[in-house]
Amino acid sequence: MTYCVGLLLDAGMVLLSDTRTNAGLDNIATYRKMFTFEEPGERVITILTAGSLSVTQTTIARLTEAIEDPEASAQSSIMLAPTLLQVAEIIGATLAGVRQEIDHKMNASKVSTAASMIVAGQRKGGAMRMFLIYPEGNFIEATEDTPFLQIGEHKYGKPILDRVVSRDTSLEDAQKAVLLSMDSTLRSNLSVGMPLDLAVIESDACQVTSRRRIEAKDPDFARMSEAWSNALRDGFSQIRLAE
Amino acid sequence: MTYCVGLLLDAGMVLLSDTRTNAGLDNIATYRKMFTFEEPGERVITILTAGSLSVTQTTIARLTEAIEDPEASAQSSIMLAPTLLQVAEIIGATLAGVRQEIDHKMNASKVSTAASMIVAGQRKGGAMRMFLIYPEGNFIEATEDTPFLQIGEHKYGKPILDRVVSRDTSLEDAQKAVLLSMDSTLRSNLSVGMPLDLAVIESDACQVTSRRRIEAKDPDFARMSEAWSNALRDGFSQIRLAE
Repeated sequence: MTYCVGLLLDAGMVLLSDTRTNAGLDNIATYRKMFTFEEPGERVITILTAGSLSVTQTTIARLTEAIEDPEASAQSSIMLAPTLLQVAEIIGATLAGVRQEIDHKMNASKVSTAASMIVAGQRKGGAMRMFLIYPEGNFIEATEDTPFLQIGEHKYGKPILDRVVSRDTSLEDAQKAVLLSMDSTLRSNLSVGMPLDLAVIESDACQVTSRRRIEAKDPDFARMSEAWSNALRDGFSQIRLAE
Repeated sequence: MTYCVGLLLDAGMVLLSDTRTNAGLDNIATYRKMFTFEEPGERVITILTAGSLSVTQTTIARLTEAIEDPEASAQSSIMLAPTLLQVAEIIGATLAGVRQEIDHKMNASKVSTAASMIVAGQRKGGAMRMFLIYPEGNFIEATEDTPFLQIGEHKYGKPILDRVVSRDTSLEDAQKAVLLSMDSTLRSNLSVGMPLDLAVIESDACQVTSRRRIEAKDPDFARMSEAWSNALRDGFSQIRLAE
């Protein structure tokens, strides 16, 4: 399982992913689920992935190949596509195509080849945009009203986001919010696991402005997690059932 | 959708269910999902239901009919079965049987007939026991290590339970915990809705010791919900991202 979340705020975009992959309970491994393509100052695209590892890896590999192709065009390369909407369309088409190929091979077995992605990006002169791409290649976009997108095991970590995140949330608070959202998910679902990848893309920077890998023993994360537990318990103990 | 939760504590059992049922987005209704069978002081059984309404209603109707049957036996009536385990077995068999019948009729359509139940009970001289009955009729039981069971839309409300509930939680704190767990679910999923049914069965009382229907405008619930939001926001604002 996986949990990835992206926030689209006035101040920038904040992205967080876990790294645990499992194929059965005894085959657990760590794989990066956050991929960045950038030409600093000109264009930045960060992709978060969830679902079938063979599908997401092949999709990322194809996207990379298309960028590196000497004959790359605006129709094939996400680094040349004129708008972020067209970037999302290229990624959606690639994802759906790979899935279809692999589905065909897997026909007999009942293994799921579904995979979804969050795509966050900005090109110079354009707006920051964030998309959630479904396994079939169609997508939705984060808006004023819904400033966050989640993929994978998203329910445990949604209540905290619903309560504290809005478009004007600061980048610092946004990082806290995604980390605490992840913390709730880690506690409730063993198949989501450390380390974590956290990236911040400041508005109009057109590059990843901060990137951090958070290991299992990260002291800041442990302290935040502990402080949040204490805040919840204290808050809980102060609430009365009836007046 | 539905959210029901039951806590099995040293001090007693606390049960909460919502009442929203929908068949398509434009056919939303309120149905009780908590059913109590009791002979006060001798035996109490409370059932919470989730899933296909036609399956759960028919199951409850059959269980009731079996109790009222003049030829009711320890094998057919949950009020006569010698142990709570056998109560769970009767309910499981009834649920699976009803589902099979209805499945048979629904063959062509792809409507899900899955339904699950939480069964909480105690008979005089026995221990309190709580079971989660799966659509196929098999079940699991709440234990020392896992003092709560959930059915329906359970993920949004799990983090708070994971943090504050243990076997020695007081009945007052337990009621707070299930209500705040429901509050998180209501905020994150529109298909779970008020009013709520809350029941407390104190240890060895062998009857429901308190029962409360919480309407949409219940002032105590609104105040708790508000206090919890504030506690979360205050706690959140006091946490620092790094030392």
